[in-house]
Amino acid sequence: MDDRQAIGIVGLGRIGGGLARNALGKGIRVVGQTRSGAPEALLQAGLEEIRDAAAFRERLTPPRRVLLYVPAGPATEKVLDQVAAALEPGDVIADGGNSYWGDSIRRQARLAERGLRFVDLGTSGGISGAGEGACFMAGGEREAVAALEPVLHALAVEGGYVHAGPPGAGHFVKLVHNGIEFGMLQAIAEGYGLLRRWHASLDIPGTVECWRHGSVVRSWLVDLLAEALHRDPGLGKPSAYIEDTGEVNWLVMDAMRMEAPIPVIAQSVMQLFTSRGASEDAAKAIVQMRHGFGGHPFGPEKSVAEERQEGRVGDVFRSGEAG
Amino acid sequence: MDDRQAIGIVGLGRIGGGLARNALGKGIRVVGQTRSGAPEALLQAGLEEIRDAAAFRERLTPPRRVLLYVPAGPATEKVLDQVAAALEPGDVIADGGNSYWGDSIRRQARLAERGLRFVDLGTSGGISGAGEGACFMAGGEREAVAALEPVLHALAVEGGYVHAGPPGAGHFVKLVHNGIEFGMLQAIAEGYGLLRRWHASLDIPGTVECWRHGSVVRSWLVDLLAEALHRDPGLGKPSAYIEDTGEVNWLVMDAMRMEAPIPVIAQSVMQLFTSRGASEDAAKAIVQMRHGFGGHPFGPEKSVAEERQEGRVGDVFRSGEAG
Repeated sequence: MDDRQAIGIVGLGRIGGGLARNALGKGIRVVGQTRSGAPEALLQAGLEEIRDAAAFRERLTPPRRVLLYVPAGPATEKVLDQVAAALEPGDVIADGGNSYWGDSIRRQARLAERGLRFVDLGTSGGISGAGEGACFMAGGEREAVAALEPVLHALAVEGGYVHAGPPGAGHFVKLVHNGIEFGMLQAIAEGYGLLRRWHASLDIPGTVECWRHGSVVRSWLVDLLAEALHRDPGLGKPSAYIEDTGEVNWLVMDAMRMEAPIPVIAQSVMQLFTSRGASEDAAKAIVQMRHGFGGHPFGPEKSVAEERQEGRVGDVFRSGEAG
Repeated sequence: MDDRQAIGIVGLGRIGGGLARNALGKGIRVVGQTRSGAPEALLQAGLEEIRDAAAFRERLTPPRRVLLYVPAGPATEKVLDQVAAALEPGDVIADGGNSYWGDSIRRQARLAERGLRFVDLGTSGGISGAGEGACFMAGGEREAVAALEPVLHALAVEGGYVHAGPPGAGHFVKLVHNGIEFGMLQAIAEGYGLLRRWHASLDIPGTVECWRHGSVVRSWLVDLLAEALHRDPGLGKPSAYIEDTGEVNWLVMDAMRMEAPIPVIAQSVMQLFTSRGASEDAAKAIVQMRHGFGGHPFGPEKSVAEERQEGRVGDVFRSGEAG
């Protein structure tokens, strides 16, 4: 174990736990704290568990480096105060969660008053990335980030690290990354929806698999959809309710304040809400008003559904260019 | 040269020319026809140029395989008729352009009456893909596609080939691919726009480069943006007018007929139109009406522009979660 690269991690869930495993595998000492007790596999891999953040002081040597992987909001605020109380001037705390970047700017300033260094550390790559090689976007002052860089280079995939800018920059660019992610998810999903509406003879899993190789849309998200279709060609298993942790909502609010047009990212957030049934009230209101002015029916028109059932779309559409 | 895999290509532009180069490099005989004369480099690589499509008959042996890479619409219609007139029953014509899939269904049926086989061959991967390994989405009857498969496997990147379904399926899934591409482009571009509105201290080229490695949004399109930012960090050189060949418009019309909700893909098409100044009339109308009811000013409010200029966004935003 290389003590010069020892780190503390608070939160050993999907991301924090994956990074701990990644670090231990590379010979980096990891002192971990988690509410629910460390997973047995991490303890066997060498994780040194502590019950109280105060123990970071004796278990790490200055300058200490502690990474937080806890949910954004009150949980991060609470853990940050506990860890800060345990550390000394010159030590570094990095918030790897999806905290709002405005909060990170304020937290950096607050900790700086006590001589503590703060890095907002946007972390991408999901569970597999945390365990095998993550993508880090760091924000903070030069010296704070420099103290963390050897560890970040060790835990990142090749090329997957940037010091994006001053305090707040890391969480800002991670938030923008998440907004792009939502737009890409929605675009790919809309395409999948179109494939499902064509003739039943279409090889949808084969088509999406093909897109992984040499197409313009090749991407990790297309890889993941192809894998899901390979397991379950109709995507029948889980529900169509899309859960999320809500941080892209902040980005839409940022865009309002910045007067930045982001129609596709904003629409993607709205589509999440719609997936949760949040458009039902509006739809009911439209049905009533349309019935009121035009006597429009309350249910679906059978003829449209039947025509779609027949899969005749290919025979009826015309671009007007061929005879 | 392997005569069993010989192909004809009509149209030796960016895609057709790239595939010709790709094929010649793999020892496949290529008989090419193009309006403007074949590029010298292709001739030196062994391309056999013909001036009239009628010559495909004698220069290829049955079953002949001729790929069309000409613009969708009247050009494809005309070339298809010329090539069909030169061929015999059992020969195969593949339309590699971005023709509308409804047209391809009708063309397949028209050629089948004369015993000719037709494959609609969606082709992705851009210029580099054509030259080094493309992504092919084929639609057509089993025997027609089978006659083409050895050549497609030779010209495709590993895994970049699918027989997607019956006639029309290849161009349909290529059209859906292009719709997804538009949505992804717009999502990534909106994120870039947000990065540009933050503090000037943000390392934008470094951030986008970092996203290429291990992030959730890693994709060929992010690769291309990172390369462009490396060449010109402010993307100052070309204009902001987005040109396109218009086929995704067909997909939006398809979605209307299929009653498929594709808000992000449709919005991405609208944003292309907006980039061409097509929203100016509407904006002028809004300015007049707002002035009419509320006396709102005709120009920008200086105070907003000034505040943005100061780059104070980081200090004024609050999520309400941190003190």
